[in-house]
Amino acid sequence: MSELKRYLKAQQRAVDAALRRFLPRESARPATLHKAMRHPIFAGGKRLRPILCLAAAEAFGGSAENAMPAACAVEIIHTYSLVHDDLPCMDNDDLRRGKPTTHVAYGENVAVLAGDGLLTEAFAIVAQTPECRNYKTRHYVVGLAQSADSRRLIGGQVLDLEGEGKSLTKAQLVRIHEAKTAALLAGSLRLGGMSANVSPRKLEALTIFGRNLGLAFQVIDDILDVTQSTEQLGKTAGKDAAVDKATFPAIVGLEASKKEAQRLTDKALAALKPFARQARRLDEIAHYLLDRDY
Amino acid sequence: MSELKRYLKAQQRAVDAALRRFLPRESARPATLHKAMRHPIFAGGKRLRPILCLAAAEAFGGSAENAMPAACAVEIIHTYSLVHDDLPCMDNDDLRRGKPTTHVAYGENVAVLAGDGLLTEAFAIVAQTPECRNYKTRHYVVGLAQSADSRRLIGGQVLDLEGEGKSLTKAQLVRIHEAKTAALLAGSLRLGGMSANVSPRKLEALTIFGRNLGLAFQVIDDILDVTQSTEQLGKTAGKDAAVDKATFPAIVGLEASKKEAQRLTDKALAALKPFARQARRLDEIAHYLLDRDY
Repeated sequence: MSELKRYLKAQQRAVDAALRRFLPRESARPATLHKAMRHPIFAGGKRLRPILCLAAAEAFGGSAENAMPAACAVEIIHTYSLVHDDLPCMDNDDLRRGKPTTHVAYGENVAVLAGDGLLTEAFAIVAQTPECRNYKTRHYVVGLAQSADSRRLIGGQVLDLEGEGKSLTKAQLVRIHEAKTAALLAGSLRLGGMSANVSPRKLEALTIFGRNLGLAFQVIDDILDVTQSTEQLGKTAGKDAAVDKATFPAIVGLEASKKEAQRLTDKALAALKPFARQARRLDEIAHYLLDRDY
Repeated sequence: MSELKRYLKAQQRAVDAALRRFLPRESARPATLHKAMRHPIFAGGKRLRPILCLAAAEAFGGSAENAMPAACAVEIIHTYSLVHDDLPCMDNDDLRRGKPTTHVAYGENVAVLAGDGLLTEAFAIVAQTPECRNYKTRHYVVGLAQSADSRRLIGGQVLDLEGEGKSLTKAQLVRIHEAKTAALLAGSLRLGGMSANVSPRKLEALTIFGRNLGLAFQVIDDILDVTQSTEQLGKTAGKDAAVDKATFPAIVGLEASKKEAQRLTDKALAALKPFARQARRLDEIAHYLLDRDY
């Protein structure tokens, strides 16, 4: 296993342990609800967002320990959004990471409420991030909200639903990806940086890095949906085409999509150039994410 | 109009104005989502929770201005919970305060997301509450979360759903009401008190007042569902009995329910006795809430 993979594995384990600690136990009443909240959290996620949060903190002299509440909060936000997006009235997905989605396992009503419970916990947890000179609790809470609110994460899902069956332009599709994916990725990096008391200049660099990484990541996801099987993905393949959802490959073609993913990653990496030595790990992670098998 | 009614009217208007200011505009993109978020917020709510929050602040020497972010946050939390509770997979209610519920007006998927958007905004807003000596942003955020999380507000809805069609004991029903109604009412009063930098003793008194007021309020709601028409209620009457939901009148009878409401209100009022002069307004509001026509 490469050094990077060992690092990712170790960070993933640290995040898993922290999530287990932060979230209410399965035995807490009502037990059904707390089981339904843990079900999607411990379903084998890669912990990409929290790992980026921790790496951003460590890159700029902060500690994983101080960044951990924010790291867990972004993962919980990501997870709640998947639970709600998978609902029958939304994307109607039965399978996620090879496991039954929350509404399949616990019923639609409990899945809605489990999502609500996770979203609420995320804010209680991010508020535990230690304050530093430049950034106070208010900045962490508002920062999390502004990565995931009705203009960003949630708004992106609405745009996505509204776009189904329509022919979107590339610009419209980028707008959906920006809201639905890039904002929370950028937010993860920003919160990590904030916990390390970074300067406004470094915070801006992390934002640009995160936004472009997020866009690249989403283009790659679109590509994989076309090129891989359900088994390889751990979720239903060909789903986008089946519901006539606009994707990068559908709009600009497969080859142009691959080039776009490369261009966006280059743009992301360029943002960190001024801090090359410190940001080596973030750079590595970006390469790792782009070099997925597609 | 009595002095109290004028006061309630004025507070309601102040809360409405603040909510208009705090929430994203209808024109913000995606417009459908932001319209769907404002729809249930400006549907003629009584603003009971924010008014209690403001009154608690003012009772103990704080200002309505400082308490306003917290007041709006609790109203937004209350509203998102109604939007999700009304969904077809939950209580399946088409009518709320005489108007179509959010999923009827905007579709089920947008209603889920509008609720998520409101919940997210509530935390961004409560984090704006000015800090004071005893209470920091962290206390407001965690205080809000702990009034509305999977053990309280959301857990109560799960217990409520699980109880449908079953014969519950009085203790089980009280537990549902505590989680589903009393916790957020107590939280509203606590947050208001916190913004006024109250002592732990006063915070405890506000908590006991709020919890018992909330329980009384819920018992009265159960009574009204039996005794009033759909027109009087502005929501579907007889709904509880129709879905075979456990209610106070169903378990202990109508007369005993009325006595229970009175007993709980007395208990609430007793908590404020040591601060009788300061808490006169809270006392008046409690009387006003109990003296509804049932």
